[in-house]
Amino acid sequence: MTQPEQRVTAGMIVIGDEILSGRTKDVNIGAVADFCTDLGIDLTEVRIVSDDMEAIVEAVNTLRARYTYVFTTGGIGPTHDDITADAIARAFGVALPINAQARAMLEARWQQTGTEVNEARLRMARIPEGADLIVNSVSAAPGFRMGNVHVMAGVPVIMRAMLEALAPTLQGGKKVMSVTVKAAVGEGTVGGPLGALQEQYPDVKMGSYPQMGQTRVMTELVLRSSDPVRLEEAAGKVREMVSEAHRKAGIAPPDDAY
Amino acid sequence: MTQPEQRVTAGMIVIGDEILSGRTKDVNIGAVADFCTDLGIDLTEVRIVSDDMEAIVEAVNTLRARYTYVFTTGGIGPTHDDITADAIARAFGVALPINAQARAMLEARWQQTGTEVNEARLRMARIPEGADLIVNSVSAAPGFRMGNVHVMAGVPVIMRAMLEALAPTLQGGKKVMSVTVKAAVGEGTVGGPLGALQEQYPDVKMGSYPQMGQTRVMTELVLRSSDPVRLEEAAGKVREMVSEAHRKAGIAPPDDAY
Repeated sequence: MTQPEQRVTAGMIVIGDEILSGRTKDVNIGAVADFCTDLGIDLTEVRIVSDDMEAIVEAVNTLRARYTYVFTTGGIGPTHDDITADAIARAFGVALPINAQARAMLEARWQQTGTEVNEARLRMARIPEGADLIVNSVSAAPGFRMGNVHVMAGVPVIMRAMLEALAPTLQGGKKVMSVTVKAAVGEGTVGGPLGALQEQYPDVKMGSYPQMGQTRVMTELVLRSSDPVRLEEAAGKVREMVSEAHRKAGIAPPDDAY
Repeated sequence: MTQPEQRVTAGMIVIGDEILSGRTKDVNIGAVADFCTDLGIDLTEVRIVSDDMEAIVEAVNTLRARYTYVFTTGGIGPTHDDITADAIARAFGVALPINAQARAMLEARWQQTGTEVNEARLRMARIPEGADLIVNSVSAAPGFRMGNVHVMAGVPVIMRAMLEALAPTLQGGKKVMSVTVKAAVGEGTVGGPLGALQEQYPDVKMGSYPQMGQTRVMTELVLRSSDPVRLEEAAGKVREMVSEAHRKAGIAPPDDAY
């Protein structure tokens, strides 16, 4: 993979009333977030919208202008509430014909399983004009890439298979590395000095995460940077700061500190 | 609770780099979605944004103009990357002073636990001018309501406690009821007739959800409406349609069908 200097960004759109009603609990956001981090792509914004044409078109057109890549999940099945392909075609101003390659993929699978070809199922072969297919190794019905927008299924196992299929087509940014420093004191104790260190190292992003449900107070300080030298230097300063906080509080550091 | 005829809507904003990087997997969206559904509030859109002032302000100002209620989670702790209160104050154009009531709540808790009062911890007492506090029974640091925007913690157990605290202040819409019809055939088989029934019952929202990982093909058809009579009538039609599909396929319905 090449390592371009420019920041590579992504937006994600989760499409589906079932997520907004609480009926289905989304797990695709976390999977796409991990996927982007691994590739050095900065997932910058996620929107969850309902199965509503205007809402999908607005989100697609806003995010595709704003970010390097857009990923969508949901709404590409065979039923009337699956309108993602229609919305993408409208957002890009193109037609939505039955795609011969998509139809062949589906019919090959249907022949194996003895599934009847009908109008509802053929909806899944409608692909916006000019889009490339994203192979679906799980259930055959393909996703597609239109411009910088990657349209995937909502069923998690299929979505992950599609992510793997499209990974080689993406250009990752600089890989971001992270260091975690564990502290046996609360966020409020380290908050002030951590803020001062953040000002000294603007190129190293510092976050603070309280750990609930532990037998003792624990805070994880996570540092991220694409520059390994600056990252290690900043991590050293944070470790010193945490040691000092432990000393002041008269407590032993946690077994797995630093 | 009164039952106004108008639709009550909500938008949600999840604030935090840790969600977008995949480091933390969000569970608050599902909890807020369930909460809204229970109160008859239509959660219409969710946005996840980074710990970035411009991004938070834009999301807050867009969604508070668009929906009856806005719920935010995350970014109200004591560290430098907790900027939600600052962003809300900027979005509403008001000051962000130390709030005497919030400070008293925090100091009472700190006194019990022997926690030192410092500048980082006092950040959590900064509340936009004109906001009402939302009590935090878990860790004392309060959330707040500014206009129609409800600002809550990101830690799930605290967020849920705050939701319970603010529930009585919300005006729910009409309670939406749902009926689930189980079918032992695939989505593609019921997709066409379900679409036709949706056209006959535009006031009953019909969704179709394939069930993965079952020993046999299963599809759940979920109908939602605020009108119990229309809902039951539509559910009867869907049950008939599914029976017919089972009969045609020559298969016995699932044990727990309908």
